[in-house]
Amino acid sequence: MAKKASSRLEWRINVPDGTSKVLEPESGAVGKIWLGLKGCMGIIVLKVRRVLENAWHIGVADPRKVIHCIKVGLALSIVSLFYYMRPLYDDFGGNAMWAVMTVVVVFEYTVGATFYKCINRVIATFLAGALGVGIHLVAEQSGDQLKPIILGISVFLFASAATFSRFIPSVKARFDYGAMIFILTFSLVSVSGYRVVELFELAHLRLSTIAIGTSLCILVTMLFCPVWAGCELHHLIHQNMEKLADSLDGCVTEYFKENGSEKDLNKKMQGYKCVLNSKAAEESMANFARWEPTHGRFNFRHPWKQYLKIGASLRNCAYCIETLNSCISSEIQAPACLRKHFSNKCMKASSYSINVLKELVITIVKMKKSSNIDVKVAEMNFAVEELVDALKSLPTTHLIATTTGEESTKAKAEGVEGSEHPSPIMKVLPLVKVVSSMVEIATRIGGVVNAVEELARLAEFKAAKDGKPKQNQPTDKLVADH
Amino acid sequence: MAKKASSRLEWRINVPDGTSKVLEPESGAVGKIWLGLKGCMGIIVLKVRRVLENAWHIGVADPRKVIHCIKVGLALSIVSLFYYMRPLYDDFGGNAMWAVMTVVVVFEYTVGATFYKCINRVIATFLAGALGVGIHLVAEQSGDQLKPIILGISVFLFASAATFSRFIPSVKARFDYGAMIFILTFSLVSVSGYRVVELFELAHLRLSTIAIGTSLCILVTMLFCPVWAGCELHHLIHQNMEKLADSLDGCVTEYFKENGSEKDLNKKMQGYKCVLNSKAAEESMANFARWEPTHGRFNFRHPWKQYLKIGASLRNCAYCIETLNSCISSEIQAPACLRKHFSNKCMKASSYSINVLKELVITIVKMKKSSNIDVKVAEMNFAVEELVDALKSLPTTHLIATTTGEESTKAKAEGVEGSEHPSPIMKVLPLVKVVSSMVEIATRIGGVVNAVEELARLAEFKAAKDGKPKQNQPTDKLVADH
Repeated sequence: MAKKASSRLEWRINVPDGTSKVLEPESGAVGKIWLGLKGCMGIIVLKVRRVLENAWHIGVADPRKVIHCIKVGLALSIVSLFYYMRPLYDDFGGNAMWAVMTVVVVFEYTVGATFYKCINRVIATFLAGALGVGIHLVAEQSGDQLKPIILGISVFLFASAATFSRFIPSVKARFDYGAMIFILTFSLVSVSGYRVVELFELAHLRLSTIAIGTSLCILVTMLFCPVWAGCELHHLIHQNMEKLADSLDGCVTEYFKENGSEKDLNKKMQGYKCVLNSKAAEESMANFARWEPTHGRFNFRHPWKQYLKIGASLRNCAYCIETLNSCISSEIQAPACLRKHFSNKCMKASSYSINVLKELVITIVKMKKSSNIDVKVAEMNFAVEELVDALKSLPTTHLIATTTGEESTKAKAEGVEGSEHPSPIMKVLPLVKVVSSMVEIATRIGGVVNAVEELARLAEFKAAKDGKPKQNQPTDKLVADH
Repeated sequence: MAKKASSRLEWRINVPDGTSKVLEPESGAVGKIWLGLKGCMGIIVLKVRRVLENAWHIGVADPRKVIHCIKVGLALSIVSLFYYMRPLYDDFGGNAMWAVMTVVVVFEYTVGATFYKCINRVIATFLAGALGVGIHLVAEQSGDQLKPIILGISVFLFASAATFSRFIPSVKARFDYGAMIFILTFSLVSVSGYRVVELFELAHLRLSTIAIGTSLCILVTMLFCPVWAGCELHHLIHQNMEKLADSLDGCVTEYFKENGSEKDLNKKMQGYKCVLNSKAAEESMANFARWEPTHGRFNFRHPWKQYLKIGASLRNCAYCIETLNSCISSEIQAPACLRKHFSNKCMKASSYSINVLKELVITIVKMKKSSNIDVKVAEMNFAVEELVDALKSLPTTHLIATTTGEESTKAKAEGVEGSEHPSPIMKVLPLVKVVSSMVEIATRIGGVVNAVEELARLAEFKAAKDGKPKQNQPTDKLVADH
């Protein structure tokens, strides 16, 4: 009892100095290693924690990603049944492995990507298998000496040709995965054909297991909360449009605001940067979308390519908003009366431009032709013309007045700004830049309107009310586009 | 003889009407099908021909792509030897398939990408194999009833978790392929472990065949004309810089030119568009570059991330050049005397800016600190200041003169332009926009200079002549960056 108490006491005493005293006999090198290890562990724990937090945020932000993971687990569990159930295993044996492999490799986040990989895999396996068996039969006829040479040369040639085809953009966009599977299957068949006697049996088994794997993937991906690449693209495009509208609004408000910057506004203004960087995402989604069957409001030959054109026109706008954004940070400010004069006109032009963008968003979201887009575009153009008129009348009414009278009185009144005496044109310059950016943005929004109207024509959007939809053949157009 | 002559005569007569007369008995449906088939064949032949022409151009433009294809063929032929040589086949048997598969799947265009896939594949296979065997042993202890349930649940959980990890950006950038291989190997091991008794033997064989495949890929990709992702990124960055310089030159020359547009100039001007669209390529190359061992002038911890920052600053410039480019197409032109006045100053500022960019290109190409970049930046800033001064003095010296005198005389002299009477500010506006874009571009080139100087510091570029290189520890910095 006394011993226990003393040891407890000793432990208590040691605590304030840390554990180094207790480790005294092993200290020196060991202590350093211990400290180093502790440091490493700390860093690793920190990193893992950060990754986990990151993962949590990703999961919360988009629960469909979590669902996707569950779908992958589900598909793999189902395909595992082939091993656990004796009758199925007896049919396929070790070849059931190919079904598992197919599921792992082919299952993608969007339905389109899964379809792309499935179709590519099945067709490429079939083609390469047939070709491999054919060349194997030819090689068989030419004797044991020539056989490995023929097989080796054919592998070399076909693998090189298929690899090269992956560099051709049109092939890469649609058949990249197929080309890889072609090389894989062809080399496996022609190489293992040298040993395995029952080549046809093998080819048949492999094809059927791959067919099982792909059809399982397609079923699971389409039945449980499907994520359609086409919907994602559709969503991305109108989301980007909204972001552009918000950025435009934010920039103009920020420039003409009276008080200090709001934090919310700043975040809103940065939306255009997403638009600048979404080209790659748009292209891959459009690529996958055209493999998708009819779903929801999108039919099989929906003009996905037109979405890329809308995306390009949006980026075109975003470049201008970037310029507008860079004007805002300018230190020299135009005189208050001028700012006020332009403020109204500029806010008006911007709000009409935003109206046009919002109308386009509604057109795309509802997939119905807008009945009053023409009116809104006319309003925007009218507001822009007013702005241009205001700019035209600038030197005669304001600039000279500014140059002569106002500057001296203002400089005296404010005392601070007067010390630098920026020349009148420099004072007006940021304002002129903002106004001319605004005009340019309106012009480029016109480009977006045209692209969206072309989409409405190609995809045969219905009229919103009692307008007549135009009679065109979008499929013919699409074919001609290719 | 007479019959022959008559038949020949008939044939001759039929030619002008086409072959439909000869096909008379089979015509109707058959003729239509024949025509349709001919049309289809024509389209297919045309498409194939276009693809082949495309392929030819790709091959001529970059012969390394052709070499890559030959390398893939070579690696596959070498790995096929495992099948053809009896002693090797006896060792590995059917598992030699995994070596072939590894080569097909892992062999990529750049060394970095191949390394990335090889290392990911080996580590993921090892980890998943060990985990699979471990769980198999645990399941073995719990009886035949529980075993499939434990295995099934573990497949579900690990596959879901690994799939989710692929959504985390930091994991996706480095271990995306590894996560897929982990799922694949884990499911194959834990599922086939249920049947195959010699699990350790199988795991050992599979690991060694994968090791053979990956080492063969690494050898072939590094020994025969290696394409380094790092070099490609390095090249892309300084090429983009040159393109920006050319675009800037082209735009300013085009705006201030006296005669009609040259075709060459137009092509030169469009270079900035490549810069706008190269973000995705830069990012993937930087990702692969950090897997590459020391090569040429690049060591293992070369600061590849800094290249991305340079790329971003170049894109920042490119946005401005986009604005500049849009000013050029403006229909309203400033009065000749103003244009002339600004022409010299603007050309000067642009040529000094181009000098700075070219100096940066040399810095990056030679990987040596430039001794006179500071001088060139100062020159650029001085030229820009002169330009700004010219702009400042604009209203007092020229604008009012334009407003009052020149316009009426000019309108009378030229007759054509006078009809619209654009207001003076509108006439000056495009010029002001060009000048202010030029000023902004110079500011942003300053950002590029900073990014390149940071790269020179991080990568310890040597001084060009007898300047002292700064003593810094780039590796520490790099670690701190992560």
